Amino acid sequence: MNGAESLVTTFLQSGVEVCFANPGTSEMHFVAALDQHPDMRCVLCLFEGGASGAADGYYRMTGRVAATMLHLAPGFGNAYANLHNARKAGSGIVNVMGDHATHHMRHESPLKGDTAGISAAISQWARSAQSAGDVARDGAAAITAARSRGGQIATLILPADTAWGEAEGPVVAADPPALHHPSPDQIASAAAVLTGGNAALLISGPALCEPLLTRAGQIAAATGAQLMSPLQVPRLSRGADRAQVALQPYVVEQNLAAHATLEAVVLCGAHPPVNFFAYPGKPSVPTPPGCAIHDLCLPGMDVGWVLEALADHLGLAQDAPFDAAALDLPDLPTGAMDLDKIADAITALLPEQAIVVNEAVTSAAPILTATETARAHDLLVTTGGAIGQCLPVATGAAVACPDRPVIAMSGDGSAMYTLQSLWTMARERLDVTVLIFANRGYQILRGELTNVGVESVGRNAIRMLDVDDPLLDWVALAEGHGVPGRRATTTDAFVEAMQEALATPGPHLIEIVL
Amino acid sequence: MNGAESLVTTFLQSGVEVCFANPGTSEMHFVAALDQHPDMRCVLCLFEGGASGAADGYYRMTGRVAATMLHLAPGFGNAYANLHNARKAGSGIVNVMGDHATHHMRHESPLKGDTAGISAAISQWARSAQSAGDVARDGAAAITAARSRGGQIATLILPADTAWGEAEGPVVAADPPALHHPSPDQIASAAAVLTGGNAALLISGPALCEPLLTRAGQIAAATGAQLMSPLQVPRLSRGADRAQVALQPYVVEQNLAAHATLEAVVLCGAHPPVNFFAYPGKPSVPTPPGCAIHDLCLPGMDVGWVLEALADHLGLAQDAPFDAAALDLPDLPTGAMDLDKIADAITALLPEQAIVVNEAVTSAAPILTATETARAHDLLVTTGGAIGQCLPVATGAAVACPDRPVIAMSGDGSAMYTLQSLWTMARERLDVTVLIFANRGYQILRGELTNVGVESVGRNAIRMLDVDDPLLDWVALAEGHGVPGRRATTTDAFVEAMQEALATPGPHLIEIVL
Repeated sequence: MNGAESLVTTFLQSGVEVCFANPGTSEMHFVAALDQHPDMRCVLCLFEGGASGAADGYYRMTGRVAATMLHLAPGFGNAYANLHNARKAGSGIVNVMGDHATHHMRHESPLKGDTAGISAAISQWARSAQSAGDVARDGAAAITAARSRGGQIATLILPADTAWGEAEGPVVAADPPALHHPSPDQIASAAAVLTGGNAALLISGPALCEPLLTRAGQIAAATGAQLMSPLQVPRLSRGADRAQVALQPYVVEQNLAAHATLEAVVLCGAHPPVNFFAYPGKPSVPTPPGCAIHDLCLPGMDVGWVLEALADHLGLAQDAPFDAAALDLPDLPTGAMDLDKIADAITALLPEQAIVVNEAVTSAAPILTATETARAHDLLVTTGGAIGQCLPVATGAAVACPDRPVIAMSGDGSAMYTLQSLWTMARERLDVTVLIFANRGYQILRGELTNVGVESVGRNAIRMLDVDDPLLDWVALAEGHGVPGRRATTTDAFVEAMQEALATPGPHLIEIVL
Repeated sequence: MNGAESLVTTFLQSGVEVCFANPGTSEMHFVAALDQHPDMRCVLCLFEGGASGAADGYYRMTGRVAATMLHLAPGFGNAYANLHNARKAGSGIVNVMGDHATHHMRHESPLKGDTAGISAAISQWARSAQSAGDVARDGAAAITAARSRGGQIATLILPADTAWGEAEGPVVAADPPALHHPSPDQIASAAAVLTGGNAALLISGPALCEPLLTRAGQIAAATGAQLMSPLQVPRLSRGADRAQVALQPYVVEQNLAAHATLEAVVLCGAHPPVNFFAYPGKPSVPTPPGCAIHDLCLPGMDVGWVLEALADHLGLAQDAPFDAAALDLPDLPTGAMDLDKIADAITALLPEQAIVVNEAVTSAAPILTATETARAHDLLVTTGGAIGQCLPVATGAAVACPDRPVIAMSGDGSAMYTLQSLWTMARERLDVTVLIFANRGYQILRGELTNVGVESVGRNAIRMLDVDDPLLDWVALAEGHGVPGRRATTTDAFVEAMQEALATPGPHLIEIVL
């Protein structure tokens, strides 16, 4: 077999069974090898950011590493933004980036680029295969790296001659190294802090999902600590019967208020609290001076071990009480449409076990509040602030969970970045309901402009923040990609469109005109 | 004034008057500063690859540096592919990438990314401003760098506090250093090689445009050398009365044949000949063993000086003869549609001084042949092999040349990468006729798969190369972006649509169903 086939078989024998792909000239041997192995599910994305975001969504819902196939340097560049989001989410991904044959690299060919440089600018592990005989071993190492520290970005650069050259058989990826965890003394100390009053347990990563979320809720209930998480949750189990978690607000003043009385924050799977962005004269962190940050368990450490150890230390039974949300569904709204009505409609209609992907940057607040009491669902958020993540992550989540409905909520400005994912949803018959909140501009930036002290805006600012001349027609954009689209300008129309979309398999798009 | 305003005024006073923008949270002070200066033309792109490609097209048509405004790390990643193409084109661009305030960088905020790493992976000059007082000087240095060596990618990273902090006035950019040129002895030696028989003068960069192209043609005619250029021309003046240049073929066998009898190649603005890609058992370079490569003038050197020096050495008058194309327009075709008919229609209808942007990868060959005798026009090609360049470059070319019609020819697979540029064409009322060659797949990769020895393809390969399930509807995609669209399935329909698009100001899209 050749190097490419040794890599495909290494993937399959190591449990990597999905490849989100956007191949180019330099990946043809890998395509040919995949073609020999129909047990590898290949999902074509018409833009590389769709592939990297889909691999992220797939990992968030399964905890399993998918592969991406990306064209050399520029193709990887196209994938970069959603690799950034994936890295912030702690998702494990193995990128396969083609490259020129090693003997071709000395020449100035059009596609020659800095494959090592761009992969190093985002990957936690990167390697360029040196020979065909190394490819299986390198691929296995990439898988192990992607599974390490709870999930990492690993990039294997595959020069064309290492793909076409003669190789031996596959290599099964070794298990990742055991996750680090703190000492029992640190557990005892953290438990004392949590019970000491005015403390928060700040969770992220695996602590946001069942069964660990319930354990975190029990610890918070037993200690009296507040249960908090960053707003940018990779995957949060929420809704009826789930432990309630306070999401840190985006707006600095609100974030400061949310932390104002805290004297201690214990980290469990999360970084220390930080404001999303810095502003003149405002602090970088939301915690008050003197608030102690206890880095009990940083991202990449053994969150599960820590929560169990804390629960043990506190003597908590498996069925210890916690502050759970009670199912509370609003009536279906009617009348003039506003975001509160949309929020009620979504909450009332959200199916059990739905997957909600949120990038409706300025429209989401009432929806996030209302759905706290919806049927149990998972919430996936743009983790790295790089917009254009929603449709790709929804695609990957739907590939991962074909039996669960996916609701993708995106602002119009955000959705434009990676709208090509609509086609992949149609191609793969994914059950995704895409909600486009058409406020016709980058509304978040209007707020940011105010935040930096601009009170009146002129032509240049308006022309850079508004997307209303011409108006985007999302029904046409959806149908251009093969996805049925509807426009909702009234509450009744939205409710009807949402009911129809949820009742009908396959993707649908609803443009909500705000 | 603050740092951001010192940068905007530095740009304006240094002659940088267009900014292709896709701002985010970290660029708000720069947006506010631009808002104070309506003499800076801000062109909003709904995806960063549209901004970098537009700046490339603007430079190719004007030789003037434009600015881009890009969001920190992920936004720059989105711009990367077309910065790659721009670098290969030798285009000068100043990228302004925002970043977190310097005091915020120590925290793990969602958007924190490797701004230095990703900018270094593509820029020929990159710097992160250290303080507000440095921004004007750094911006001026970036402009000078972008204008150096015939055009470079320069990236200025602008931490938020260097944008909002107090600064002094603007700095006018210094002239770039003089371009290098070879010695008179090397000119004499090159002239002897060119007249020695079986030689080619391989030109690129400024040598492809008037008035240098005519000079190159005169030198070729006087010496008997063949006038050649790489297929990936940044901008080639061609059509009636223009010097005829042989474009190096893409297909390896054809490229080898085109060089088979050459004993010497003299470089003038071009790199040594190289095949686009390497294949097992095929050579990397198209020139035969023993063919001498004379690096008289590499890219970034003084191409104009070299051509004048060669012409002087050869005693060529300004009106010396050269092998020019004669105007030869075909009749308007009719009947069943094929690529030859399309080529005839485009050739017959192409307006004088049209700008043709070509990324119709597998469909373009007959059009490029036919338009050799069309009315005089400029041809802009995807220079770095990173597809998704056509619509952005067409956008920038149309901004640069509002009085010249732009014809953007793209494959459907390629156009999908950066289709958001359609909206900018509509917003700016750009006179662009977009031709989508809908072969419903990555046809170039079908050929590449054959090139690597695959004879029959299975489900995985078909599913990665075909874009036909569902079909893309380019008329809907165009109209979703605010651009009128038509579909042509017959020759007559194409001719009529093309006539209407050329006669009506503003953008139009024609989907050519192959």
